[in-house]
Amino acid sequence: MEQPAQPRVVIIGGGFGGLNAATALAKLPLAVTLIDRKNYHNFQPLLYQVATAGLSPGEIAAPIRGVLKKHPNVEVLMGEVVGFDLDKRLVWLRDDGSVPYDYLVLAAGATHSYFGHDEWEKLAPGLKTIEDAIEIRRRVLLAFELAERSVALEHAHDLEPIQFVIVGGGPTGVELAGTLSEVARHAIVRDFRSIMPQQTRIILLEGGPRVLPAYPEDLSRSAEAQLRKLGVDVRTRSVVTSVEPGGVTLADGSQVRSTVTLWAAGVAASALGRALGSPVDRSGHVLVNPDLSIPGHPEVFVIGDLANLADKSGQPLPGLAPVAIQEGRHVAKNVARDLRRQPRRDFVYLDKGTMATIGRAAAIARIGRLHISGFIAWFLWLFVHLMYLVGFRNRLLVLTEWAWSYFTYQRSARLITGSETLPGWSDAREAASTSQPEAANTKAS
Amino acid sequence: MEQPAQPRVVIIGGGFGGLNAATALAKLPLAVTLIDRKNYHNFQPLLYQVATAGLSPGEIAAPIRGVLKKHPNVEVLMGEVVGFDLDKRLVWLRDDGSVPYDYLVLAAGATHSYFGHDEWEKLAPGLKTIEDAIEIRRRVLLAFELAERSVALEHAHDLEPIQFVIVGGGPTGVELAGTLSEVARHAIVRDFRSIMPQQTRIILLEGGPRVLPAYPEDLSRSAEAQLRKLGVDVRTRSVVTSVEPGGVTLADGSQVRSTVTLWAAGVAASALGRALGSPVDRSGHVLVNPDLSIPGHPEVFVIGDLANLADKSGQPLPGLAPVAIQEGRHVAKNVARDLRRQPRRDFVYLDKGTMATIGRAAAIARIGRLHISGFIAWFLWLFVHLMYLVGFRNRLLVLTEWAWSYFTYQRSARLITGSETLPGWSDAREAASTSQPEAANTKAS
Repeated sequence: MEQPAQPRVVIIGGGFGGLNAATALAKLPLAVTLIDRKNYHNFQPLLYQVATAGLSPGEIAAPIRGVLKKHPNVEVLMGEVVGFDLDKRLVWLRDDGSVPYDYLVLAAGATHSYFGHDEWEKLAPGLKTIEDAIEIRRRVLLAFELAERSVALEHAHDLEPIQFVIVGGGPTGVELAGTLSEVARHAIVRDFRSIMPQQTRIILLEGGPRVLPAYPEDLSRSAEAQLRKLGVDVRTRSVVTSVEPGGVTLADGSQVRSTVTLWAAGVAASALGRALGSPVDRSGHVLVNPDLSIPGHPEVFVIGDLANLADKSGQPLPGLAPVAIQEGRHVAKNVARDLRRQPRRDFVYLDKGTMATIGRAAAIARIGRLHISGFIAWFLWLFVHLMYLVGFRNRLLVLTEWAWSYFTYQRSARLITGSETLPGWSDAREAASTSQPEAANTKAS
Repeated sequence: MEQPAQPRVVIIGGGFGGLNAATALAKLPLAVTLIDRKNYHNFQPLLYQVATAGLSPGEIAAPIRGVLKKHPNVEVLMGEVVGFDLDKRLVWLRDDGSVPYDYLVLAAGATHSYFGHDEWEKLAPGLKTIEDAIEIRRRVLLAFELAERSVALEHAHDLEPIQFVIVGGGPTGVELAGTLSEVARHAIVRDFRSIMPQQTRIILLEGGPRVLPAYPEDLSRSAEAQLRKLGVDVRTRSVVTSVEPGGVTLADGSQVRSTVTLWAAGVAASALGRALGSPVDRSGHVLVNPDLSIPGHPEVFVIGDLANLADKSGQPLPGLAPVAIQEGRHVAKNVARDLRRQPRRDFVYLDKGTMATIGRAAAIARIGRLHISGFIAWFLWLFVHLMYLVGFRNRLLVLTEWAWSYFTYQRSARLITGSETLPGWSDAREAASTSQPEAANTKAS
């Protein structure tokens, strides 16, 4: 079926950029190979819903093969790319040789950065993958379970209230803080007998002067007000200098106690950016030409969160799904122009606006010069995210889930999978249990 | 709120038996404590759907707290029971002291047994927990991914077809075999470019003379015929004596090659049965009195898969959800009789029939003397299982999923989470790659 003469495009990454490049390139006389470490596309804007037990992983993820199966000239390979040979035009896979290309589209995205303190990751997980989200869900739910058990078994009448500390006031931090507050104050209140989940404290630590710094100032202020209304303790100008079991330390030397710490502070480009050998910025984003190719290699494109391309004002384009989607499609257009021997065109980002969700009926949105807050912004957010959610089936299911949880305040994906341990907590428990004989801790004594 | 004079019932296990005991006991003037290692009830009859990527874990699991929250006199504790003191009436928790009881209901269920060969578990996972199901799903989907990659990268033109070997022809083995066949022959056929998933061989090994031995002989024959129609290679009188990486050995010395081996052969009662110190049968099931209590301890009941109670014919009652449900409710009735100082009643199992599903529109059912096969049996199975599925919300979602997958042949929960390794396969791959230089394996050479 495949014509041997067709040029081969290899796409690395099945995120928004890679998938959109693949579907657009599929329409051209090309052989397309998409390589990803995972077999599914993860709808990152809704990951926080998995982390807060509102949606199941299967509802925000779609198998990449399923998304691309109607394109016979697109093949999908699950594998881990470890490097490139730009001269020989090869992509190297871990333990599995190489894949040759005529065009390369690198869309490997970004991950969280602990500013050189990778040891903090175990103490304060970030939120980039499905596994991250399941781990955060486990820690959050387990905090309530362990508190309930301790109080019920009379081990800890003086147990300090559960305290969730979220480091970083960007979109992810704001989403997590707002939604966790909703969970503690509404969803699980009637589930417990010995503790009062609504007494949970949620503290959002932002190093700068305002949350959501990428948004206009009035929207930041509105977001902060909406967070406070949801019960979140927002602390700006609070730079975290150290993460420990059971708490964090701020730049002013003060400490914040924490039952569960979540990391939403730093973003670093995928290491594959540096592996290209082309110039990168401070965070590892690859500096690309206006046509999205890299200097000296017109056949190599970098798109999405991994690319650094300045907009008209000289600012790098933000790491948002719409940027990645438009860049993916633009690469396909430029390859089509190459095939027709026409000159390439520069990428121009069409900014339709941005929005951030905060919690139940709480959000902000900027659409051109229009600034919107509250219920209408939240409704817009819901509508846009449902429309973009990959796969019709998921859309229906997620809408059902959301409608259900909106009207009942329930969150149905409250599964704790994995082991029953919580960093920091178990240390505290151990300390408590050594200070008094075990029998004294129980009703039976 | 709680009256100190109320007797305390401690229930161990949030399966069908434990949950039904809890909801029935909740109506009595008692303080009820349900303890489970997990925070969710797992609807075991549909676990095979998670293992075969048809449903997400969240769709067949319900948080125990959510199920019981409307009963103010029921508390739920997440914790691991490690032993009992029947004289002092205490339940011991791992690392967390003890819980006193006036009545104890032990409903800790069963797990799979490898007949003393626990080292086989890594090579051939069984299907009892959500984690098991996710692991099976990972191995099954990964087998296709690794084959596709090998063939696409020209490492393995002579790759032998994927072969799934299922050990054990009881209900779980039959469900897995039939559904995996459906997956390979329909759901994912169009997803791959280099391999043909429909060439996958599915081999069901049963030690005895027929599959589903607990059913009447004509239904066993019908089940076998339906399995063959779905493309399953059914081999009866095939006793597995050893499980190795890449295959199994039978009693006659022959070997069966296997890409992925699944274990559906043995069931063992929870170790908590033996921990009671009361007589148990060969597989560790606790021998109970006709009122479901244990000899010498009328305040201790054992129910569900962990109990051994003979029916009128002298056969032990089967390990089925309806038995556990009825036993859970019966315990509550006997406790109520105790409270009213009336004599207890013996448990009598009301057998409404049993059914086993095989695959798409394929099942068998026995209802009294009526034996049903094929589409009608399958439709009945669907109806009954939807009705019993815990929680209204899940029922709606699962019905949506099923309707979708029935009409489209699609399976949407095809997520590979965890690491990218497959026992046996990687050994074979290593052997192949050492036998020839790596460069020779790739298109680039």
